[in-house]
Amino acid sequence: MQVSAYALDKIAEKLNLSIKDLNKAFKKKILREDEYKEQKYLLFKKGFRGIEKGTVIFLNENLDVVRGYPKTYRAITLYPTIKNHFIDKVVVEEKLNGYNIRIVKVDDEIYALTRSGYICPFTTKKVKKFLNLEILDDYNEYMLCGEMIGLNNPYTPYYYKEADKGYENLGFYIFDIKERETNKSLPVKERMKLCEKYNLPYVKPLAIVDKETAHIQVRKIIEKLNKEGREGVVLKDPDMAVSPIKYTTHYTQCEDLKSAFTFFFDLGIDFIFSRVVREGFMSYEFKESLEERKIRAKDLGEAILLPMVETINKVANGERVSEDFELIFDSEEDFEEFLYFMRKMKMIINIKNVEEINTNEGVKIKALIGKIYNRTNDKIISYLNGTLWE
Amino acid sequence: MQVSAYALDKIAEKLNLSIKDLNKAFKKKILREDEYKEQKYLLFKKGFRGIEKGTVIFLNENLDVVRGYPKTYRAITLYPTIKNHFIDKVVVEEKLNGYNIRIVKVDDEIYALTRSGYICPFTTKKVKKFLNLEILDDYNEYMLCGEMIGLNNPYTPYYYKEADKGYENLGFYIFDIKERETNKSLPVKERMKLCEKYNLPYVKPLAIVDKETAHIQVRKIIEKLNKEGREGVVLKDPDMAVSPIKYTTHYTQCEDLKSAFTFFFDLGIDFIFSRVVREGFMSYEFKESLEERKIRAKDLGEAILLPMVETINKVANGERVSEDFELIFDSEEDFEEFLYFMRKMKMIINIKNVEEINTNEGVKIKALIGKIYNRTNDKIISYLNGTLWE
Repeated sequence: MQVSAYALDKIAEKLNLSIKDLNKAFKKKILREDEYKEQKYLLFKKGFRGIEKGTVIFLNENLDVVRGYPKTYRAITLYPTIKNHFIDKVVVEEKLNGYNIRIVKVDDEIYALTRSGYICPFTTKKVKKFLNLEILDDYNEYMLCGEMIGLNNPYTPYYYKEADKGYENLGFYIFDIKERETNKSLPVKERMKLCEKYNLPYVKPLAIVDKETAHIQVRKIIEKLNKEGREGVVLKDPDMAVSPIKYTTHYTQCEDLKSAFTFFFDLGIDFIFSRVVREGFMSYEFKESLEERKIRAKDLGEAILLPMVETINKVANGERVSEDFELIFDSEEDFEEFLYFMRKMKMIINIKNVEEINTNEGVKIKALIGKIYNRTNDKIISYLNGTLWE
Repeated sequence: MQVSAYALDKIAEKLNLSIKDLNKAFKKKILREDEYKEQKYLLFKKGFRGIEKGTVIFLNENLDVVRGYPKTYRAITLYPTIKNHFIDKVVVEEKLNGYNIRIVKVDDEIYALTRSGYICPFTTKKVKKFLNLEILDDYNEYMLCGEMIGLNNPYTPYYYKEADKGYENLGFYIFDIKERETNKSLPVKERMKLCEKYNLPYVKPLAIVDKETAHIQVRKIIEKLNKEGREGVVLKDPDMAVSPIKYTTHYTQCEDLKSAFTFFFDLGIDFIFSRVVREGFMSYEFKESLEERKIRAKDLGEAILLPMVETINKVANGERVSEDFELIFDSEEDFEEFLYFMRKMKMIINIKNVEEINTNEGVKIKALIGKIYNRTNDKIISYLNGTLWE
């Protein structure tokens, strides 16, 4: 890679890094070049000297920077974690189970960046269609950070009633507006005011509570969300002066395990320990009776074992298991572009069905795509054929 | 380390390694020196060029070699694994849940080596007391490989009725006799004949079956052992012409999880995935109904969650959790020697109680020792105090 082809000194200045560090990031392949429709950009594949993973530098005149969305840490216990972490008041927002997107406007073009910093053609098109993004003309220095949710997405296909759009289940909710070059967040109220003004969908607070008693109220909210089969909460300082923290429901822990154990040799090992530990601390903190704890244990055990055996059965019957998702495209061209992007992402996919559908917005293409988990398929076959476990 | 102090050429010849490789093993700290009562020996900390982990070279005139006990691979499915692996007949032996020991006689001294190749003073003394080891005078080239079981041991304290010896629950059962320099096993019948002749305790076959139908018979045996709360089976070729393989009960998978999740931040992550996968394949192969599978899932979930919450509760109440074992020593000196050995093994222990007991063999020392799992204790305290999960 021709590092010298870049205006290294200017990029370094923009990122507040030394040229030496910048070169190091290139050499270690932490910093890599990618492009989307002729627009070249550099992308941090990992966190590096204070620069977040997923940070992007557009290789334009300006060298526009879009900082990566910071990791949201998790509370393992509500008390005293919330009390220790926050200053005074705590905004409780619902955590949606989709994928994190940053929307920016650079050189008059709208881009939707995934958490890892790729410009996703599918998402870019959907947000341009769903949203009126005038806000980015008035505030070009901002990025709109939010969750893309719904069944018809290629990353976290998960049904949300509120994301129903007739022929498509997909929706975007802003949970943060940040200065894209500094990662500084607007206070919660200002973010909501701006969203209202520009008529943009956003995540609304479930409650604003005092940090001293927050653990009691958050527990009640979590219990309600759990019954409704929702993911959990993100807790925020009203002024975004300290970083947000998250906490998820028993329902989500089990759903995570179910998906992971459907493809257990690919995902199981990374998912299982953290989920069961969250459940352990929740059961402790909620002072469960032995009976309640046994119900939780049964849920956990079933979330692990049942999908695993189902997958073994399928593979034993000759099926190759895949995670299927259905996407809607405006044109054949959009579909092709997306497939090219998936291949670039090193996803192994299998197009299971493509059909034209008539919608109130004209003819669309509906594609059923299967994401293949090779390791799970191959290892199950191998053990069913008598391979020994080493 | 002064590599040149050893007769490198002779050691290399004994192990069928080049001097270059031997030096490499020293440099990489795969090969290390240890000693037991003036007897210096070299020890392979890892497998290296065909030499098993736990292999020992006594630094005496002879350079006596004791090869490490080979890893026993695991069947994940009974069919077709057994049929594929074996030649004709299959000897089914019970797998005991203790620790693997090799007993050798070198320069007129008896030594008991642990799986990793340390001469364990506790075990060495016990086997010298329990067993008449004349066999090693007549067959000095053999090592007696077996399982030390029972509640009163420092590695796998697990009660076995048959190991009851009045004031102590401890017993040794030979499951393999090997040439210690070549690792060649005696045929099963010869091993049993020799054990009978020298009046040594050994693991008796539960059945000898045909490989074509073994999966049916082994399943029945496994179901019986499961009901009795026993660990599982080791399957062997009668002539030991192919390597043994093991298969364990549902009961054992759950017991493993229970122990691991009592000290979950130390042991949980390494144990959980393999255990649940074994259960998944067993449930599949045993063609369980959904109802049966849910009972298995409940057992699994409880084996994970209940000990975890119990430990969190204890730590929350100010306790430091430890794995306790009670050992019987003949003398104060033996006790001190064992403590020195534990420290050398880098075990963090806490002596909880020491008392003299009167036995039919005179006064003994009974010590209650706690093995401390620092990570579990420290991490729980930290999360209870509000540390975020990164």
